[in-house]
This record gives sequence, structure tokens and C-alpha cells, in this order.
Amino acid sequence: MSELNLVRIGKKPIMNYVTACVTLFNSGNGDIMVRARGQAIEKAIDTVQMLRRGFLKDLLIKKINLGSEDVTRFDGSRGNISIIEIILSREIEEDVADDETPDESA
Amino acid sequence: MSELNLVRIGKKPIMNYVTACVTLFNSGNGDIMVRARGQAIEKAIDTVQMLRRGFLKDLLIKKINLGSEDVTRFDGSRGNISIIEIILSREIEEDVADDETPDESA
Repeated sequence: MSELNLVRIGKKPIMNYVTACVTLFNSGNGDIMVRARGQAIEKAIDTVQMLRRGFLKDLLIKKINLGSEDVTRFDGSRGNISIIEIILSREIEEDVADDETPDESA
Repeated sequence: MSELNLVRIGKKPIMNYVTACVTLFNSGNGDIMVRARGQAIEKAIDTVQMLRRGFLKDLLIKKINLGSEDVTRFDGSRGNISIIEIILSREIEEDVADDETPDESA
């Protein structure tokens, strides 16, 4: 539980990332982070929207971070690439403590 | 002051939008909204990052909204397009009330 569960958005179809998020939530994770940079940022937001509209109606966007990273391109030139990190959570807060039924994930 | 000052990100170079934001802030606006959809979302975040790194060091990201809009494509098919709205503010909070020195904007 110490590290946030990360879904890193890349070049795969959106549905792959939607499924990854749903799987993470279903395996009992409270918060997950969707992270993307550059052109994949659009896909990250598409993923969140698809989750909200279809799969997890109780989805909550907890926090959105914007940032940037230094990159070196193929031709050796340097530049900045923007990053988005979206922290998602589910609204259902049943009193399921961490110490309850750990047999499912163990 | 009732409507938020909007910078809508499109197909122009990033610097155009950076300049638009700086101009809005310099003309005395407290909050501005940067809005983009689809592929322009990446450019919106690039714009914010460029503002933060170079132009307005005291820039504050007040709120980020994600959403989606229905679109009809050229071929008549319908789909969804994701939207980002970033509300920016400047940290400087000198005690400048709204009723003070209105001659500048009037």
C-alpha cells in the first residue's frame, strides 16, 4: 500500500488502459495513478472519461498533477515534455479496513 | 469579473497561447481558464508548463476539470472528445480589492 498503483499510458489502445484500471480497482486498490506524457496525455484523459462514463460510475478524480520532464530526442537535441498524473479513487467507502480479509490478495 | 477569462487552445503555436495568458494576467485578471479538447490537450499543458517555468513564476494551478463533449465527425459518425479546463491564478495577493483603482480597466 506504500506505493501508488500506477497505470502508465503509452501507445496501446485505450481499452487496454481502461481494463488495467478496472483490474487494479477490483483487486482492492484504493487509489490508482494514471500517468502519461506528451501525446499520450490526450489518451490518459480519454481513459479516465471512459472509466467514468461506462465502467466505474463512482469514480472520483482525487488530484491532477501537471509537470514536465527533460528529454533528449533521437537527434541529440534536448527539450521538455509535459506530464500529467491523475489520481483516481472510488467513492464507495464501506468500512473495509486494511486488516480485513487479506486472503484474497495474498 | 463575472465570466472567467478564457484562452482556448487550438492549432496555433504554443507561444501564441502563452502570450495570450500573460496579456490577460497583465491586464489585471485574477483567474484565467485554459481550455482545450482532443489533441490540443497536450498543448494546453505545454502552455501552462511554459508559463510556470519562464513567464509567471508565481503561477498557481487552481483547479483542473476533465470532461468530454459529443462530436459529429466529417463522415457523420458520432463520438466523444475529451476536454481539459485548467484554471490558473497568480499567487500575489496584495490587498487589492475589486473596488480599488478601477480606472485602469474602465
